[in-house]
Formats: sequence, structure tokens, C-alpha cells
Amino acid sequence: MAERVVVIGADAAGMSAASQALRTAERTGRGLDVVAVDRGHWTSYSACGIPYWVAGDVAGPHQLVARTPEEHRANGIDLRLLTEAVELDLDAGWVEVVDHAAGRRERLGFDQLVLATGAAPIRPDVPGADATGVFGVQTLDDGGAVIRYLARDVRRAVVVGAGYIGLEMAEAMVRRGLAVTVVDRSPEPMTTLDPDLGRQVHEAMEGMGIDVVTETDVEKFEIDGDGVVRAVITDAGIFDADVVVLGTGVRPATELARAAGLPLGATRGLRVDDGMRVADGDRVVDGVWAAGDCVEAWDRVRRDWVHVPLGTHANKQGRVLGTNLGGGSARFPGVVGTALTKVCDLELARTGLTEDDARAAGLDIIAVTAESTTRSGYFPGAMPITVKVVAERPGGRLLGVQIVGRDGSAKRIDVCALALWNEMTAAELAMTDLSYAPPFSPVWDPVQIAARKVADRL
Amino acid sequence: MAERVVVIGADAAGMSAASQALRTAERTGRGLDVVAVDRGHWTSYSACGIPYWVAGDVAGPHQLVARTPEEHRANGIDLRLLTEAVELDLDAGWVEVVDHAAGRRERLGFDQLVLATGAAPIRPDVPGADATGVFGVQTLDDGGAVIRYLARDVRRAVVVGAGYIGLEMAEAMVRRGLAVTVVDRSPEPMTTLDPDLGRQVHEAMEGMGIDVVTETDVEKFEIDGDGVVRAVITDAGIFDADVVVLGTGVRPATELARAAGLPLGATRGLRVDDGMRVADGDRVVDGVWAAGDCVEAWDRVRRDWVHVPLGTHANKQGRVLGTNLGGGSARFPGVVGTALTKVCDLELARTGLTEDDARAAGLDIIAVTAESTTRSGYFPGAMPITVKVVAERPGGRLLGVQIVGRDGSAKRIDVCALALWNEMTAAELAMTDLSYAPPFSPVWDPVQIAARKVADRL
Repeated sequence: MAERVVVIGADAAGMSAASQALRTAERTGRGLDVVAVDRGHWTSYSACGIPYWVAGDVAGPHQLVARTPEEHRANGIDLRLLTEAVELDLDAGWVEVVDHAAGRRERLGFDQLVLATGAAPIRPDVPGADATGVFGVQTLDDGGAVIRYLARDVRRAVVVGAGYIGLEMAEAMVRRGLAVTVVDRSPEPMTTLDPDLGRQVHEAMEGMGIDVVTETDVEKFEIDGDGVVRAVITDAGIFDADVVVLGTGVRPATELARAAGLPLGATRGLRVDDGMRVADGDRVVDGVWAAGDCVEAWDRVRRDWVHVPLGTHANKQGRVLGTNLGGGSARFPGVVGTALTKVCDLELARTGLTEDDARAAGLDIIAVTAESTTRSGYFPGAMPITVKVVAERPGGRLLGVQIVGRDGSAKRIDVCALALWNEMTAAELAMTDLSYAPPFSPVWDPVQIAARKVADRL
Repeated sequence: MAERVVVIGADAAGMSAASQALRTAERTGRGLDVVAVDRGHWTSYSACGIPYWVAGDVAGPHQLVARTPEEHRANGIDLRLLTEAVELDLDAGWVEVVDHAAGRRERLGFDQLVLATGAAPIRPDVPGADATGVFGVQTLDDGGAVIRYLARDVRRAVVVGAGYIGLEMAEAMVRRGLAVTVVDRSPEPMTTLDPDLGRQVHEAMEGMGIDVVTETDVEKFEIDGDGVVRAVITDAGIFDADVVVLGTGVRPATELARAAGLPLGATRGLRVDDGMRVADGDRVVDGVWAAGDCVEAWDRVRRDWVHVPLGTHANKQGRVLGTNLGGGSARFPGVVGTALTKVCDLELARTGLTEDDARAAGLDIIAVTAESTTRSGYFPGAMPITVKVVAERPGGRLLGVQIVGRDGSAKRIDVCALALWNEMTAAELAMTDLSYAPPFSPVWDPVQIAARKVADRL
């Protein structure tokens, strides 16, 4: 008889897992019936695309959907949208779901459970944080809500938090003609970079007309009589706001899992093994799997568990999960902390540890910053690029790289990520066979210039 | 007493070596006097930039010079231009040079000799190959000669050979308004790619208005009574030509070294150890060093010696040579065969073995081609990219990657080069932590999509 699989969460991780499980099961002959539930309206979408939808680069939400509910159903998945999982009994093997459209509760029995419940925006613990007009941007439904709200008479926006989503949403709203202020508690925006590089981000934001207020804490969201946000009150003054976007990070949405007694890490993310089975160290929880923004991943550089809510990991983890669930074999080998974005025409990227991270961890390090150009200096379109390399003393093992620059800069982080992945030294990276032609690179790639300087100093 | 170093060849390899030797010697306390000779007018220039100078992207030769003769002299190098090394006596320790400006011969004694004599264009072994108007493009002096010639009443150009320099020069001349025909003996242009990808190059060239004639051998260059080229006679017909550019490859310029009995490989390149000492296997030739286009490099994927005349290797090898010569320690760890260029707006890149290479070597392989986009498919500016991965059966070790695509494609080869460098499998590469954001990549990077397909098939 076929095993019953219940998948909670129908975005990247859950649906990659479901699809890959069925694909693999077809090959292995394993019998699987798959039910997937999600409390939202959408499946398999790019949440990362929401700021570009807000900015108008993308016409509508359907463009952000990689695979529709109909396509998933055609592939044999029993998909139930607007259906929220509210209780989980692992011993009895059921999950209770509420069908919000039908107003019906139901218990779905399972042999195998896939948790892909994602992450939820962190709301500042201050009065008014739940007011009308204060938005987290995590799901496609969130994105739709923001866009509908911006269609009102909305002129002034405050973004709280200057990380990836904060910057992307700030730029999107400036491009829609709003006056935008970004408030952050750190000395410079983008704290996944060191402050010396964050300074360049700061300047790029100001260059775009964004008001950047750093080293500032939000104390309260002021609301009117209808419960609608009107201003953001901070320790640096009051900022009028017709709309507020929260860029204060997300946390794993693991309440259901926690209530069921499943193992969570320090970040509240589910602990998994490299096959994406929920596991507490070596103790695997039989028949329970998890992937995506609700799990922790092993950071190969930090040598610790981290929470990195990125669509690329969700897709990979979902695929690994599905392969194993379907009777195949795959493993998710961890992360090195690679991420990138752009602010106006400034590209930023990072992988591994920043200088601040490494010093905070008590490591004996060297950090070197090199200025260069994206193409041969004489070639039209050569753009400035700054590469900062952090390496361990005295051996020179690479610990992290940060890149800030104009067109053609940020994707160079991938080479650095692979160098970290393979535990290379700066001297080794400097001598590897990277591509060179004047329209693409100086004769020493900017990454190798920086790595070489590290090697020279050691 | 200071040791006397003579450097033959004042371009990237020679002058990197000289500069780095002096820099290192300052640190180690080793006493060095450096004399450098070159038969041309220039030092430390980007020969790779010549096509862009011809095209008008670069205003003049001075822009292609990374370091001028005056700068080198100011750094303490006794630099002699228009000075050609004509004979070498290793036992006696002198090189005889001709100063073409002064018309004087001289023997320069040395304790240490650096050979950086570069490479020379291969001229087809057919009548008329030395005619006026037939140009190889290797040195900055060559570039200047072509440009002066093109300023005449020159309308029709024939390029013989559709490799990197052939394509770049063809495009440059089309952009100057010439009618350009490219003749090559292979089924498709750009034989450093497999023909299926070469086909895209062929189409891009035709799209630019270049006449591409493949599977065609040159039989003769027709000349007029003044010895000026007038047509290229091939087995596929006669092509009128006011100017001919040779893109038929280069060979190491090692006549001097060969005459002196130094060890050459099958490619005629000098054999060196990883410290850039001339060496026949384990037998190092004491006090003789070499770097750049005149040497062979160890190919880590082929596991064989190859000749890869690229500025990026010349710079790295020169630096390694100089470090060791100056009393420090460095090694050049070899190459994996990475290269890239662009034809109009088509970018092309390769690293490692092509499918044809691998099959010719008798390897049991799988080759997979994946079509994708450079950004998330919904993001403005997403461009088509084709990635072809070659891997070994059954383990999946990566052997080579080729990329052809529009803006944002080619530099992705560097990740592949680093994967080859570290002997990764396709499955490993597919799961590494590469960067993702919609303006930069689909959620699975195109390289990982291709690698994943290889892993799936194995």
C-alpha cells in the first residue's frame, strides 16, 4: 500500500520536496500519496521577487510563480490552499488542518511528514507594531497586501531595518515616488557586511534619495483612531509614515513543530541531518522531514548551525528531501553564507565571515581591502569594485569575502564561495586559473588582487 | 656582490618577474642588478587589448601599457628597448644582443637568466603568407602596424582562423566598416568549444555581418607586383582581400632557447618546474628561469603539459618567478584551461575539457547541455545562457564546462574553473552555496542547473 505523505507549506521547499519525492518514487517503485497544505493562495513562488513587483519591474504575482497549483495537481499532488495546519500529533500520526475557505477542520493522517512552514517576519516588540499599514514582506500574499496599500494615498514610507529586504523595499518604494526613510540601529546599513563597506551602501542609498537614519531604535509606532500607522517614534525623533515596512529579519515559523516536541536549535529553526530528516544530533525523528526557511543549516565556515532563509537553499533542501523520501539518496552539504543584492546600481555580496564576525569569534585574522575595476582599466564600462578578504593567520585559510561595486561586481562572490567551500588559502586562490579578457576582467581578477595582497602580507 | 640578472622580453612575464624580483630582494637582502632587453618599443602591455584598440574602444596604445619604460627604469631596471637577443651561451653566461637603434652588438653577462620571449603568430605554410598586408597580431608593434595599414584605402578583410584573436579582430574590423570574411578549416568557429556551441558563435558572427566560411583550407595568398596581398585563395574559392589578419594561433618563441640546448616540450614551449625554473623533469637548469607565452604549463585536468599563451598566466608566472629569483618562495600551480571572450553581444567561455577533447582522450564521459537565463526568468534583462558540462562516468568528476550566452553569462566560468581546480563532482557543484537574488541569477544558478542534470543522469 502507498505511504501517505503530508507536506505543510507549499512554497519552494515543500513543493520541491513533494515533486522530487514523486519523481524519485516513480524510479524506485516506492508508493507515495502526497497531500500538501498551505494557508496562502500560492505555490512555488519567488518571495525574493516581491520588491521587484513593488517597484514595477515585474508586472504581477503570477510572474513570480514557478509552478502553479494546477501544475502541481496535474503532477499528482493533492494540494489544498487556504488550509492551515494547526495541530500536530506525531505519535498518532496526524495533522489537524483548517480549511479557511470551507470553514472546515480535518485531521490528515500521515506516514511521512514534511515540514516546510517557512519563516515569519520579526515584529519589533514595541507598541503599534501590529497596526494597519505596518507590513512584513515574506509571502506573496504579504506582497499583494503591500501593493494594494501603496495604491492608496500613501506618500511617506518608513522602512525599519536596513538588511536585504529593507533595502530592496526602500528602493522599490522610492521608485514608486514615495519619500522613504530607513531606520536602523546599526552604525551602517547592511550589517551582513563590515561597516567600511556598509558605508558605500549608505552613500548609494542617499544618492537614490533615501533618508538613512542609523544608530536609531524604534520606540513606538504611532497610530490614529482607526488603528492605522501614522508615524514611527524613535530615539532620534519622529518620522511621519503612511506606510511602514519591516526589514527586521525573519524567524523560523516552527510553533507547530515546537508544540509537537520536535528539536529546535538556538535560532528556533528545526534541526535536521544532511538528508533533511528532522534529527536531534544523531537521533533521527522517524518519518519527519523538514526543509527551507524553517530549518537550520550547517555553516561550513562557522562550524555551527545557522538560520539562512534563502530561496536557493529551500530549493536545494527540498530536492534533497524529496530524493531521500522517494527512496533515492542525496545530501545537503551545508552553506558558507553567500548572499548578494543590489541597491540602485551598487551591487553587494558576501560569503563566509566578515571581519567583525571573525574578530568576535576570537580568531587571529588578517583583513585586506583592494580597489580594482570590473574590466581592464582601459576598457569601456570598467567599473569600480571593492573586494575585502578575511583570512586566518598565519596559514592564510580564507574565512570570508565581501564585494561592493558597480555593474559586474557581485557575482564574483561565487568564486569566493567555492574557495571557502574547498578550504583554500588566499595564496591558492590568487594563483587559480580564473578567466581573463579585457571586457570581463583586469589581467588579475579583482578577487585575486585582494587574495594576493593577503598572501603578500602574511 | 650583486648578482647580474638578464631578462629577455619586456612584456607581462618578463617585467612582472623583474619587478617582483627586485621587490622581493629588497625584503630578503639578496643583491640583484637587473637588465631587461626587448626588441620592441613597449613594456608591460596588454596584447589582449589590441582588437579593442583596432575597434576604437581604446584610443591608443598608451592606454594598453600597464607600466611604461620610464616607470621600470625608475624602479631600478636597466631597460633596453629595440634590443634583440640573438645568441645565448649558457656555459659562458652571456647573451648577445643587437641594439637596433644604435646598430651595435654587445654581450651581456649574467648570473641569472630570465627567458620571457613570448610567442609568435603561426603563419600558414602557403605561398604569400609573408606578403605585405598579411598581419599576425601578437605585439603592440603588430597592433600599430595593422592600424596604420587599415588607415589606407582598405575595404575588404579576410581573417584566417576563427579562434579568439580571429573573432576579436573580425569584429573590430567590421566595426571599422570593413567587409570581413573569416575562413577556418573547422566545421564551426571557436574550436576551443564543442561544435554545438560553436554553432551559436557562427550565428552571432553572421548576425554581425561577418561572412563565415568553414571547413576551408587556405591554399595561397595572391599578391600583386608590389608584393601586396590581394586575395586569399582557398579550396572553397577566392576571397578578395585588401588586408589579411592571421588568427591561426601562436607558437612559443623559443628559437634562442632551443639553440642553447634548453629543454622544450612537445609544443616547443620551455619546460619549467612550479617555481618557474627551466627544468627537464627533475633536472633544474641552474640559474635559468622562464615565464609567459614561451613556456608550457601543467594542465591539472588533462594531466599533461600544454601551451596556453594568456596574459593572466604570464603575469602570475612572472610574479612567481620574481619571488623565487628574489630569494622568496612561491609556486605556479598550473592551469585548468579557462578562457573567455565575446563576439558582438555573445559571450563565450570554457574551462577544462570539451566533449570532443574528452572523447578523443578515450574517457568514459557524460555531457549535458542546459538552457537557462542569467537572471530570474521574470526579471528584466534576463538573458539566455547555455551551459554544457562534461563529467566522468560513473563518479561524476567534472572534466569541463562551456558557456555561451548573452550579457552576464561568461564570467560564470570562474566557478566552474574552481570546481575543476578542486576536483569536485557535478553533484557537489550542484549543491554548493552560490549566490542568488533575482537580478543576478535564477534560484538555481545556470551552472548548477547543468551540474544537477549531470548528477541526475549518472
